[in-house]
Amino acid sequence: METLKIIKIGGNIIDDSQVLTSFLNQFAQLKGAKVLVHGGGKLATQMAQKMNVPVQMNEGRRITDASTLDIITMVYAGKINKNIVARLQANNCNAIGFSGADGNSIVSEKRPVETIDYGFVGDVKQVNTNTLEVLLNNNITPVFCAITHDKNGQLLNTNADTIASELAIGFAPHFKTELYYCFEKSGVLQDVTNDNSVVENINTKTYKTLIDDGIIADGMLPKLNNCFHAINNNVDKVCIGKTNMLFAANTLFTTIQK
Amino acid sequence: METLKIIKIGGNIIDDSQVLTSFLNQFAQLKGAKVLVHGGGKLATQMAQKMNVPVQMNEGRRITDASTLDIITMVYAGKINKNIVARLQANNCNAIGFSGADGNSIVSEKRPVETIDYGFVGDVKQVNTNTLEVLLNNNITPVFCAITHDKNGQLLNTNADTIASELAIGFAPHFKTELYYCFEKSGVLQDVTNDNSVVENINTKTYKTLIDDGIIADGMLPKLNNCFHAINNNVDKVCIGKTNMLFAANTLFTTIQK
Repeated sequence: METLKIIKIGGNIIDDSQVLTSFLNQFAQLKGAKVLVHGGGKLATQMAQKMNVPVQMNEGRRITDASTLDIITMVYAGKINKNIVARLQANNCNAIGFSGADGNSIVSEKRPVETIDYGFVGDVKQVNTNTLEVLLNNNITPVFCAITHDKNGQLLNTNADTIASELAIGFAPHFKTELYYCFEKSGVLQDVTNDNSVVENINTKTYKTLIDDGIIADGMLPKLNNCFHAINNNVDKVCIGKTNMLFAANTLFTTIQK
Repeated sequence: METLKIIKIGGNIIDDSQVLTSFLNQFAQLKGAKVLVHGGGKLATQMAQKMNVPVQMNEGRRITDASTLDIITMVYAGKINKNIVARLQANNCNAIGFSGADGNSIVSEKRPVETIDYGFVGDVKQVNTNTLEVLLNNNITPVFCAITHDKNGQLLNTNADTIASELAIGFAPHFKTELYYCFEKSGVLQDVTNDNSVVENINTKTYKTLIDDGIIADGMLPKLNNCFHAINNNVDKVCIGKTNMLFAANTLFTTIQK
């Protein structure tokens, strides 16, 4: 089977124009089938402030009312996604921007209201890779923003890490799929202040210990849960670290194992 | 050769949610290969006002500074385009949203500064249909917003009517291409106050007479110029009218002839 790399980038790359440019130059050179997934960085929050739309968060998750969904759609699918696509094209990488609505690629359902109504937030229900495979087989690179749809005409805000893991799982029957979460650290760190203290391998057993010891906590928990969800569902390789894990030999990063 | 319909819709459809929904339901049913091109309607202007970005126009054309380009990219490629794609998917039409950067499909160059600097406005230089043909051959419907790129990483604002005619010309070697401009009137009207006074056929000769008589003027001139540009460059059929020209028999509309 052909290898497919699914690479997720977040705010630390998107929010810095120079870092983003440098990353996209290198990403464009990567050989083989690849998919880029990007978060929204700080831009959506800045835009909401400019437009006097209050930002409502609950446990680090954005509550998405209709105005917020509009802003997210404009910023993620419009400004960020199209600028990334244009820069990839400048590097001769034939990219096409995607939301989950495009090609009906990611169908989600509005999160049920329990104690909190998250609004227009979608939990992924189904990934359809048919259209995406046609593109990948024609050397085209899909670039995903963190928006999905419910197949009834409603766009929904979906966590970018989740989109990356669900895409990886969806592609696993058709490709040898590798999932890379790029963020500001070199991986899971034993000591959060020391970027050399990377835990190079984590499996289900050591994961529990790292949680018990308080080494994995807060925002790292959902990220790691996405990693294990992927590795337990036929994704071949799952890594977390800085972008140089993709481009340079002898770099430290964390690999997730069953 | 297979027939390809390229259909352009403007503000009168986009700005009215009910009209848009009804149009998209019908568009989704249209048999055969098809491409949708949409303008931006009033939304970009409203958004610019909300964000206190002054709207600068010259002879009906928007002057596009960096802030305005951001707004246009957000509104056209984000909000409008993704909502149209989601609604088409709800109607089982497998759509993918496109700017000219996606698939490197429309390359333009920044309009040279003569008396007026239009800013980030692009004149179309090249249409690449390869990627789009792969999609059309897989029963996928591209949905274009009015944004192009210069292949050096810069997005550019481009007139939606021009995008439609240039796409039609680009596809003409590969498809029997039909171009439909949908707007608020039933076509070119002899008497602007009478929607039944449609000039059913216009050719190069009668076009000149209609201009001399003041029947075609103002905003209709660039639209008609796009029509003649297409019909003179191997596009098989060019029509202007209300959307019902696409869906209903016995409707009046204007057909452009050489």
